Amino acid sequence: MSVQNAMTADFLRSAYGGESMAHMRYLIWSNVANKENMPNIGRLFRAIAYAEYAHADNHFRELKDKKGDFTVPAGAIFGVGNTVENLQGGIDGELHEIEQMYPVYLETARFQKEKGAERAFHYALEAEKVHATLFQKAQDIARQGKDMDVGTIYVCDICGHTTTDGLPDQCPICGAKKEAYKTFEP
Amino acid sequence: MSVQNAMTADFLRSAYGGESMAHMRYLIWSNVANKENMPNIGRLFRAIAYAEYAHADNHFRELKDKKGDFTVPAGAIFGVGNTVENLQGGIDGELHEIEQMYPVYLETARFQKEKGAERAFHYALEAEKVHATLFQKAQDIARQGKDMDVGTIYVCDICGHTTTDGLPDQCPICGAKKEAYKTFEP
Ligand SMILES: [Fe+2]
Ligand SMILES: [Fe+2]
Ligand SMILES: [Fe+2]
Ligand SMILES: [Fe+2]
Ligand SMILES: [Fe+2]
Ligand SMILES: [Fe+2]
Repeated sequence: MSVQNAMTADFLRSAYGGESMAHMRYLIWSNVANKENMPNIGRLFRAIAYAEYAHADNHFRELKDKKGDFTVPAGAIFGVGNTVENLQGGIDGELHEIEQMYPVYLETARFQKEKGAERAFHYALEAEKVHATLFQKAQDIARQGKDMDVGTIYVCDICGHTTTDGLPDQCPICGAKKEAYKTFEP
Repeated sequence: MSVQNAMTADFLRSAYGGESMAHMRYLIWSNVANKENMPNIGRLFRAIAYAEYAHADNHFRELKDKKGDFTVPAGAIFGVGNTVENLQGGIDGELHEIEQMYPVYLETARFQKEKGAERAFHYALEAEKVHATLFQKAQDIARQGKDMDVGTIYVCDICGHTTTDGLPDQCPICGAKKEAYKTFEP
């Protein structure tokens, strides 16, 4: 069943817009990192872009019966700089989602008893926490003019959980089996 | 040089939001087509999603010096139905861009002498015309419960030109050489 309440539906659409734009700018910033000869940071941007796709997909599917065209207001970070600057854009965007956007959207979904939206917002909120940490790590290294030293990056198809610490047996956010992880290899 | 005028900058941000959301819903609708055993229509959605990425990338790069966070209003089509219905969503979105959005954005960019934005909007407008036609063809076939009969799909990396009629020698929209085309093979 699709979302019922108008406020939660509005928040799902805004979150979909925000995730779609985040997905897109991470793909663009990935290309910048590759050109700066930081292929691992480029790959991190690409993996996290995929996680944002999983979030957008979850939000969109919760809206599946709310058909038609809408003007969607959504937050986004703009600008193309060097990779240290672009990573700051990544950190700023993730922190806004972690500290402001998703906590309010999640509280609203709980208040309005929208179970599907609650799950979609919860998955995104938890995954964004990891994204902020990974972008911060990448920026610390990029500031030294170096690329990250990172092997395969794994992203959970269901909730967007992202890890550089090897393939988990089970997703710590959504409980999916390891087969649900998409791999981004060096 | 990045865009100078506030109105054209607003329109670039809205177009970026719209293209990012179109990219995302075409990926989602591609998965639906694949599940309905229409892999060629699934591939068409995926190829056109890539063209929308090229448009979003162009708009974002015209805004490269307009750094910071913005709340972006942008139009998007919502809903997940069967593939015939999803293709109608594709047609509706493309027609809005062709008949209303991009003509106004393009006129404004010309009026404000924003050469870069003019090019980005022109590329998108011309590519969307092909997208509307391709989605209409796909829908006519999907209505008969059949998949499209289509070989390699080519998408120009620079302007998003999309064709099922073989690799052009030169892009008819932006003039790029054939090496600029990304291929989507059966
Ligand atoms: Fe996200
Ligand atoms: Fe994120
Ligand atoms: Fe997960
Ligand atoms: Fe487009
Ligand atoms: Fe299009
Ligand atoms: Fe082109």
